[in-house]
Amino acid sequence: MNTPFQPGEYAHAHVNALHAYVPGQQPTGGDWVKLNTNENPFPPSPKVIEAIQGYLGKGGTRLRLYPNPTSGSLRAALASHHSLGVQQVLVGNGCDDILNLLMRVFAGVGKPAGMMMPSYSLYPVLAGIQGAELIEVNFTREMTLDAQAIAASGANLFFLTSPNAPTGVGFSTEAIAAIATALDGILVVDETYAPFASENAVDLLAAHPNLVIARSFSKAYGLAGLRVGYALASPEIIDLLDRVRDSYNLDGLAQAGALAALEDQAYYADVRRKVLAQRETMAAWYAEQGWFCYDSAANFHFVEPKNAAGETGPAVSQSLFDYLNEHRVLVRHFPGHRLTQGFLRVSIGTESEMQRTREVMAAWQTRGV
Amino acid sequence: MNTPFQPGEYAHAHVNALHAYVPGQQPTGGDWVKLNTNENPFPPSPKVIEAIQGYLGKGGTRLRLYPNPTSGSLRAALASHHSLGVQQVLVGNGCDDILNLLMRVFAGVGKPAGMMMPSYSLYPVLAGIQGAELIEVNFTREMTLDAQAIAASGANLFFLTSPNAPTGVGFSTEAIAAIATALDGILVVDETYAPFASENAVDLLAAHPNLVIARSFSKAYGLAGLRVGYALASPEIIDLLDRVRDSYNLDGLAQAGALAALEDQAYYADVRRKVLAQRETMAAWYAEQGWFCYDSAANFHFVEPKNAAGETGPAVSQSLFDYLNEHRVLVRHFPGHRLTQGFLRVSIGTESEMQRTREVMAAWQTRGV
Repeated sequence: MNTPFQPGEYAHAHVNALHAYVPGQQPTGGDWVKLNTNENPFPPSPKVIEAIQGYLGKGGTRLRLYPNPTSGSLRAALASHHSLGVQQVLVGNGCDDILNLLMRVFAGVGKPAGMMMPSYSLYPVLAGIQGAELIEVNFTREMTLDAQAIAASGANLFFLTSPNAPTGVGFSTEAIAAIATALDGILVVDETYAPFASENAVDLLAAHPNLVIARSFSKAYGLAGLRVGYALASPEIIDLLDRVRDSYNLDGLAQAGALAALEDQAYYADVRRKVLAQRETMAAWYAEQGWFCYDSAANFHFVEPKNAAGETGPAVSQSLFDYLNEHRVLVRHFPGHRLTQGFLRVSIGTESEMQRTREVMAAWQTRGV
Repeated sequence: MNTPFQPGEYAHAHVNALHAYVPGQQPTGGDWVKLNTNENPFPPSPKVIEAIQGYLGKGGTRLRLYPNPTSGSLRAALASHHSLGVQQVLVGNGCDDILNLLMRVFAGVGKPAGMMMPSYSLYPVLAGIQGAELIEVNFTREMTLDAQAIAASGANLFFLTSPNAPTGVGFSTEAIAAIATALDGILVVDETYAPFASENAVDLLAAHPNLVIARSFSKAYGLAGLRVGYALASPEIIDLLDRVRDSYNLDGLAQAGALAALEDQAYYADVRRKVLAQRETMAAWYAEQGWFCYDSAANFHFVEPKNAAGETGPAVSQSLFDYLNEHRVLVRHFPGHRLTQGFLRVSIGTESEMQRTREVMAAWQTRGV
């Protein structure tokens, strides 16, 4: 042997330059109030469990067979649910799979991807994996959209999260329509949190053939552990995405579970009602403290805490983050951007979880600094 | 509106040129003998079902949480099973996920992928998705490997299926070592069928840092419906693959089920014994008919049927395929290549399934043509 073998020499330069996405912490051991990854605090519908049990059967015999390669039943049910054609739906192994397929079709060398900053931190990771240039369009503290700035960005594929993460701010259908009209490219509206909002962009699909809606079962359906997402778009866009999709991207249990969830809208309407009630309670409490908090159309808040001295800023939010963490309340802090570093993102939990969170926050605020 | 919007104008040229992979047929309705996609005829271990039930729990509460992003427990168990370090294992959403990650890291513009022809028909699809040139190294009817031809192919990433599909031919560890030594690139040995063979290439990892082994739970573990595969390689190669992996590529149920399967080696030793017994019976029967059949190291045979007139060829194998299909025995025919068009690929089923298959084959042969 001469010099040791370096596999990086055989890898793409852009892969050698990558850093992996850092997923939110999953604490082990009980007793945590886990408000850091926007999971639904309520379990999935009992019908989901029944459907998975049904697929398993007595001896798991169906597991020995390949699953339906197109997630056919789920795809048809999603089309019906959204009053669209089956050819307008593509099912993915989580919404992240959908976002990845969009990158592979519409981004890469000579085809820049674009995103609002701040928004979902996975987009830069996926652009990096694809070796695509990433163009950032900056929000101001007002968190409003500028259709002309997005159109002028030169992005071939633009990701807009609505409601946005980490702010929770939802955008009006009119604002999204204006962007779809102005953009010379594919507009992806990532509606992971849309089931918690009062409006969504699905009805825009008919008039905007460059629009893709991305959805998830992780949050509203309480199925983050099952990895199911989907895309809604024109048949032509769905056909392009389907060509780069893994032919068996969803296992049989996930297909069965997601279908049952979709069919139990009554259960999830109740879940949503409970989440929105807690959202209202928390927003009122933040207002009482005099803490600025964006109006949330999602299942979390982005709040700017004030300490006992009335100060805000990165050190203050870090202090509250640490204090919450010491008291086993886990939230998310994004110290890397000037518009996020003074804030904390706090998921909506159950009534008792939010009560405990308020108690710990109040204790932090009143203890003096 | 002027000209209608064409999303293909915003897509990569190589995506516009793609045709989707055609998965094997999954017949609906009962009473089929399904021998077309090399699924295991036996159900998974009862412990797999128990483990999935355990993850579900009473109310499916764990499903609301994100799964372990690295499939940590499964990854550690795989490392232990193969006597490797944890950093030498990567878990994928099916072996196809692993193959796709390899393409994204090591193939693309200026980095050609290579494969033996004929072998697994997904490699050209994945190369196409990646926009990579695909170099084919041709087998002769003898189905032996030529290390120098592979090394001279110029492939940056070479896929070798061992045991091969659709032929079932296994390659010796020595032959694979010779290729790993000769190739100036990454050698992937796709060992989807290796658990049915008498040898495998795992022990070569220590001396060959350019080697990757790809494995699947679909066949030997009877879990095609669960979508779990994995890669074994140097920590450096695993690290590169991990950078392009979706951070939640495996759902919680699949992680739990695959772990339980791995831990029940006794059950699967019995399954393997039964499959190999049927493989022997079928090989003997083909020999009795005077039909050429490659020695199989996998859970299927590649057989060249003869009709009543003693003829072989594409029309003869098509005739038997059609006759079997009429009698609800589904096998696979690959009419697109001169080395495969006169053959049929017949998976190993249960004793009664193979008996029925022989009866239908015998009836076809004796009915005259």
